[in-house]
Amino acid sequence: MMTKPALKPATRLSEWTATEIAAAVAARTTTCEAVARACLARIEERESQVLAWQYLNPDQVIAQARALDRSGACGPLAGVPFGIKDIIDTADMPTEMGSPIYAGHRPRGDAACVALSRKAGGVLMGKTVTTEFANRHPGKTRNPHDPARTPGGSSSGSAAAVGDGMVPLAIGTQTTGSTIRPASFCGAFGYRPTHGVLRSAGVLEGAGSLDTLGLLARSIEDIALYRDVLLGIEPAPIADDVRAPRIGFCRTHLWSRLEPSTQKLFEDAAQSLARAGAEVHDVVLPREFEAIDDTQLAISSFEFARNFTWEIENHWEEISETLRNNRLKHGLACSFERYSEALAHAVRCRELLAPVFREYDVLLTSPATGEAPVGLNSTGDASLCGIWTTMHVPAVTLPVFRGPNGLPIGAQLVGKHNGDRALFAAARWIYRVLA
Amino acid sequence: MMTKPALKPATRLSEWTATEIAAAVAARTTTCEAVARACLARIEERESQVLAWQYLNPDQVIAQARALDRSGACGPLAGVPFGIKDIIDTADMPTEMGSPIYAGHRPRGDAACVALSRKAGGVLMGKTVTTEFANRHPGKTRNPHDPARTPGGSSSGSAAAVGDGMVPLAIGTQTTGSTIRPASFCGAFGYRPTHGVLRSAGVLEGAGSLDTLGLLARSIEDIALYRDVLLGIEPAPIADDVRAPRIGFCRTHLWSRLEPSTQKLFEDAAQSLARAGAEVHDVVLPREFEAIDDTQLAISSFEFARNFTWEIENHWEEISETLRNNRLKHGLACSFERYSEALAHAVRCRELLAPVFREYDVLLTSPATGEAPVGLNSTGDASLCGIWTTMHVPAVTLPVFRGPNGLPIGAQLVGKHNGDRALFAAARWIYRVLA
Repeated sequence: MMTKPALKPATRLSEWTATEIAAAVAARTTTCEAVARACLARIEERESQVLAWQYLNPDQVIAQARALDRSGACGPLAGVPFGIKDIIDTADMPTEMGSPIYAGHRPRGDAACVALSRKAGGVLMGKTVTTEFANRHPGKTRNPHDPARTPGGSSSGSAAAVGDGMVPLAIGTQTTGSTIRPASFCGAFGYRPTHGVLRSAGVLEGAGSLDTLGLLARSIEDIALYRDVLLGIEPAPIADDVRAPRIGFCRTHLWSRLEPSTQKLFEDAAQSLARAGAEVHDVVLPREFEAIDDTQLAISSFEFARNFTWEIENHWEEISETLRNNRLKHGLACSFERYSEALAHAVRCRELLAPVFREYDVLLTSPATGEAPVGLNSTGDASLCGIWTTMHVPAVTLPVFRGPNGLPIGAQLVGKHNGDRALFAAARWIYRVLA
Repeated sequence: MMTKPALKPATRLSEWTATEIAAAVAARTTTCEAVARACLARIEERESQVLAWQYLNPDQVIAQARALDRSGACGPLAGVPFGIKDIIDTADMPTEMGSPIYAGHRPRGDAACVALSRKAGGVLMGKTVTTEFANRHPGKTRNPHDPARTPGGSSSGSAAAVGDGMVPLAIGTQTTGSTIRPASFCGAFGYRPTHGVLRSAGVLEGAGSLDTLGLLARSIEDIALYRDVLLGIEPAPIADDVRAPRIGFCRTHLWSRLEPSTQKLFEDAAQSLARAGAEVHDVVLPREFEAIDDTQLAISSFEFARNFTWEIENHWEEISETLRNNRLKHGLACSFERYSEALAHAVRCRELLAPVFREYDVLLTSPATGEAPVGLNSTGDASLCGIWTTMHVPAVTLPVFRGPNGLPIGAQLVGKHNGDRALFAAARWIYRVLA
């Protein structure tokens, strides 16, 4: 089912994409163990700088890889090492939620996404660092491109591990901008699916009305492959659509928050895409979208503060001040009327957004205000992602730009609701132009 | 905030509603311990016939009640014993999912709904029997009104415990008809909320696109109270709306599945309500609704089969044949195209249903084909609930009818999306007429 890619013997095994690894394992030109060892070597070399892993046991990794080699691994992720955000249940590794409240916690089973990854032949490398309960209080991870800067969050370890070349795939989650923003900061491909389609059994619920899984990868093909694995369906390659996409360049009402150098990267990219044959026009969102930040905050805070009632009532002192004084305080103070109004506003905005996708295949928009900011106390501004999260539409970010300090910045592309595969096709076209 | 009800000293303490118990505890006319002991006595008397409980430890119950008495319990559920379906996490009791795979499993924390119930002053009585993973393979529970008959499912123990007078409140869940149907069979008030509004952290995900919590209670006032507790907001009484509701009598395309005696109960009820001053008209759903059974089945099976990948891959032999040969087989065979088509069909039907609620406050419809069927191997036909579950709208069932064998049958009332409180107001008016 997979198109067999040309192998790239010039690059290190640890730099191969998931698609390349699975093809090589299936062709018996490498082994699961060799791939796992290559990734472990990269981690050994870099982990003291990056601190992407909350739990990693090389013996456990090698044992999995050998078992796969013995059984003749041939699934769509055969031998592919993957990392799992530490708010996602794993039967054979701890799941600590980025909180001392869950120190040493070991779930009974694997989350659906973990079991589906293993069923496809993947090798679970370990648990990646999350901010506390996938919220704002950061974990230990540093940006792999500059240890003085944040990797973004909340899927900090997943994005840093993929961005640093430690694993080709990792799973994160997104409630505001927790996958797309760290992917941009760490130089990874990131994907936030249409809300509700990838299953979340065994994944900590933060705010169910907005939560989704998020994927971090080294190519758009790998993202399409991993999505199919997590849907539990036979993987199909991205449609080879030769038609140039119709691109809506959407600065959003938050444009002034972008660093001028980042604004210029996007203006130039829009021109490059037009020169390459894409139809590119400016898209201005209706005025209603200006309140979307407040709407996202009300929905997520209200739900978050209810979901964490056990922790609030029994472990208040072990919750960070960041979480107590912001999300929880705000959520506990938010009235049901305000929450209901926010849900209704989100529905209105979704209705307003839908017709835009009759004229455009994708929207081009920034995932962040610029490069990863200096400092490890904040994971950066998530609002440029929060708009699209609240719209329930799929988004990807492509690592195509460099900022003034040489650090990665992504190009975020937004697709229509349930148009995830069409988004991948357009993203591949755009990546080929901008990369 | 609560209106203080007239106490009913003539009835046994174990028969009081939650509203009555909380008021009496707050007024210090009874204690949490006395209420807990009364419920434990009822359970002691009846459990060998009903088998509603998967886990119940009287010492643990009394200890909770005493601690509440010492602390001067005064929350909206002060001293109210509640049962929790055994697919919902509890920190101090096992959570076994109705499956040997989870025998002895003890979660780290309480689910959001459990923690919110305790925060409100409730006393966690124990874990109620669920069918295997809230699906079709039954647990041990019997119908409290006739031990040869099913209590319905999947929230079998929650409905039987409330229907039998063991506890005034219990939490279940619903993906097809898992709360409303057993409530009807067991003679309890049942409530299935608008999809997505009551938080599900710590609740097993079956099919997230359809899953909600479900409440079992002894009065519509108790349901309104418990909903506010689970929303984490200050409880407000049901609006005292004197206007008679506009009722759409909706037989649905499944009308011929109803026993003739049940059809007559509903025909007569529609006439009684009209005589009492309600505007009652027949509502015929558009033709598109005839495919809703298949749509519900495709969505739930596709999602269920993905969510249980860990169990399928690691514990296949411990899964019942019922589950393997039906839901899982169907779900694993369902294509993504069929699943997507079903999701789109559900959206279309929701759009078609919305205008109906401009003309009607509620729809009156049957929750089941009749009385609980004889036999314990099946939990009965869920399709009359599945329509409304798939519509994401709220529903209640009121224990107002008796079938030809003297067993309870409920009247299901369906409200508009996010119109849960208005549904309660109409339900109270209707209950007063039909009871």
